[in-house]
Amino acid sequence: MSAMNSTKTVLDPFGTTIIEDYERLYKEFGIQPLKPLLDRIPNPSMYMRRNVVFGHRDFERLLDAMKSNEPFAVMSGIKPTGEFHLGTLMTAREVIYFQQQGATAFYCIADVEAYEDNKIPFEKSEKFAVGNIADLLALGFDPKQGCIYRQYKEQRVKDLAIVFARGATLATMKAIYGERHIGLYLSALIQAGDILMPQLQDFDGPKPTVVPVGIDQDPHIRFTRDLANKFRRKYNFIPPSSTLHKIMKGLDGSPKMSKRDPMGYFTLHEKPETIAKKISNAFTGGRPTVKEQQKLGGIPEICPIYELCMYQFVEDDDEIVEAYHDCKSGKLLCGEHKERTIEIVLRFVKEHKRRHSKFVDKAREILKVA
Amino acid sequence: MSAMNSTKTVLDPFGTTIIEDYERLYKEFGIQPLKPLLDRIPNPSMYMRRNVVFGHRDFERLLDAMKSNEPFAVMSGIKPTGEFHLGTLMTAREVIYFQQQGATAFYCIADVEAYEDNKIPFEKSEKFAVGNIADLLALGFDPKQGCIYRQYKEQRVKDLAIVFARGATLATMKAIYGERHIGLYLSALIQAGDILMPQLQDFDGPKPTVVPVGIDQDPHIRFTRDLANKFRRKYNFIPPSSTLHKIMKGLDGSPKMSKRDPMGYFTLHEKPETIAKKISNAFTGGRPTVKEQQKLGGIPEICPIYELCMYQFVEDDDEIVEAYHDCKSGKLLCGEHKERTIEIVLRFVKEHKRRHSKFVDKAREILKVA
Repeated sequence: MSAMNSTKTVLDPFGTTIIEDYERLYKEFGIQPLKPLLDRIPNPSMYMRRNVVFGHRDFERLLDAMKSNEPFAVMSGIKPTGEFHLGTLMTAREVIYFQQQGATAFYCIADVEAYEDNKIPFEKSEKFAVGNIADLLALGFDPKQGCIYRQYKEQRVKDLAIVFARGATLATMKAIYGERHIGLYLSALIQAGDILMPQLQDFDGPKPTVVPVGIDQDPHIRFTRDLANKFRRKYNFIPPSSTLHKIMKGLDGSPKMSKRDPMGYFTLHEKPETIAKKISNAFTGGRPTVKEQQKLGGIPEICPIYELCMYQFVEDDDEIVEAYHDCKSGKLLCGEHKERTIEIVLRFVKEHKRRHSKFVDKAREILKVA
Repeated sequence: MSAMNSTKTVLDPFGTTIIEDYERLYKEFGIQPLKPLLDRIPNPSMYMRRNVVFGHRDFERLLDAMKSNEPFAVMSGIKPTGEFHLGTLMTAREVIYFQQQGATAFYCIADVEAYEDNKIPFEKSEKFAVGNIADLLALGFDPKQGCIYRQYKEQRVKDLAIVFARGATLATMKAIYGERHIGLYLSALIQAGDILMPQLQDFDGPKPTVVPVGIDQDPHIRFTRDLANKFRRKYNFIPPSSTLHKIMKGLDGSPKMSKRDPMGYFTLHEKPETIAKKISNAFTGGRPTVKEQQKLGGIPEICPIYELCMYQFVEDDDEIVEAYHDCKSGKLLCGEHKERTIEIVLRFVKEHKRRHSKFVDKAREILKVA
């Protein structure tokens, strides 16, 4: 509750996304705040600077490796169930960021998870995967400094899952994933395999590895850290680190952007008109009337438009700070802010699509898809 | 109960192993008795003739294939946790029998199960596997008409397990295997993969497949048949058939021979003296005194020595029938029967070991073990 209060009382352009009870995350779950480390990070990402990446587990380990020029890895991936959206954009950019800081980058097509959790047949997820990887490359991922693979085709992650299965009690699985069919538990074990594969001898052995994820994914990280400890004797694993980002609100004001809610999010491949319409129709932190807003100011803390700019589409920190204050003071009204945002987003999407089309063949080649 | 009664009232040399309530197996679990099919089996095995193989599921399907010269398969395997014992001897012989009747034979080293269920590391189970496969070859398995493989190295069974996992609810797994860790459930799915792999396109597609197992393994068969149905649309699977054999009593008179009970069983590689001693010390169906036995006769129905001969070591049916009647009439006393049995068993073991030693290199080659 104290976190919520502080965002209401202190002017903080980067403290706007409200996660229930940060303090509890820090105290009860052993998540560390990122802010105190910010000065030690040589070249913090936009997400880090803006406190979108607000927490971590064991990230010092990675910083130490960076500082002493020792090898380190970054690992994340995508569930190939459709086109790149704002959530997958975030993790892709985080992976690319760490790759540019010197990490060997692992990017996984979680086709087993898509199958077990979403019933997507492998023939179908393969098609999505080609598009997804073209997106990743278009965003700047360098395949020469990394490893892109599909779970179902990568024997090493499947074999790790088999090894890890002995260390996974039913009670643990139920606590994390609920009462689900075995396929879901198996895909969780394969995911642990994804996260620890970078430490196998085939990839030059144990090394600090960071997994950038949304805070909702933290249980997977804890689960994998636990397995890394259980099987340390056999593999010498270093428990993986994580950075934790906040979850975007839906454009319609729902607390979490979700594919279940088509008006609340957009993909990078939707028609520009549709994207524009969704942003136009978005919920905002505005007041009932212009007059009131000019008098009281808007509430960027609850505004998905503000968040869209801050999380993804405005690169300049000063511009964000300015928008925050202009909103707060009543100078920047919602209509104008939406128009401005639509322009920025559509410009980005247009350029991204152009780049994307150039990488489809390369994606196909990497994934060995005919 | 009626089955028990019948074995007590009717003289039946091949009806001696008492499974609680056969009738229930037939009525409630859908297991079929084998006896009515015996005339249709071109060349019934010793186990079949003696009602050791007493039941089946869907075995007609296999008979039809045999009759019409269509392809069929037999599948079984061994958990590589030690040396060949009387249980693994039985399934190996059953596999070899069907191979000789024209089946393509699949024999699996269940190293994933040995790992998940018995914590045997793969490096260790590999050593056992070499010995086990040398045993299989020594018993007459023809590797040119079959496929011998290790689960952990065979991508196709692992991939089938991943596919099947979506069809396995927690409730089903718990009902069959109890509340266990995920590894055990995973190895059950891999076992289903073992049983259905012979029907993949790589092995010329769907075909009737028989899995010879002990009655205690029937739940696995039912589970796999259920999965075969669930994934029939994708693979065109024919539900696997099974033959079901009775479970041997322990030499010490315990109801089920088990590795937990070293005096109750022996392996094919134990010292002859130890085997002889175990047989000498075995429980029998004898009476308290010679006099009483000569008067009342022995009880072969409860005698592990009689079972040892009938199940495994006496090839001639008439010899078994004679021993049964001689025991019943009080003519054959336990001491003599034990001596005779020791002689037969040691002769078999000696010859088997001789053959075994010649197949170790071949086993290593088949398993690709350096």
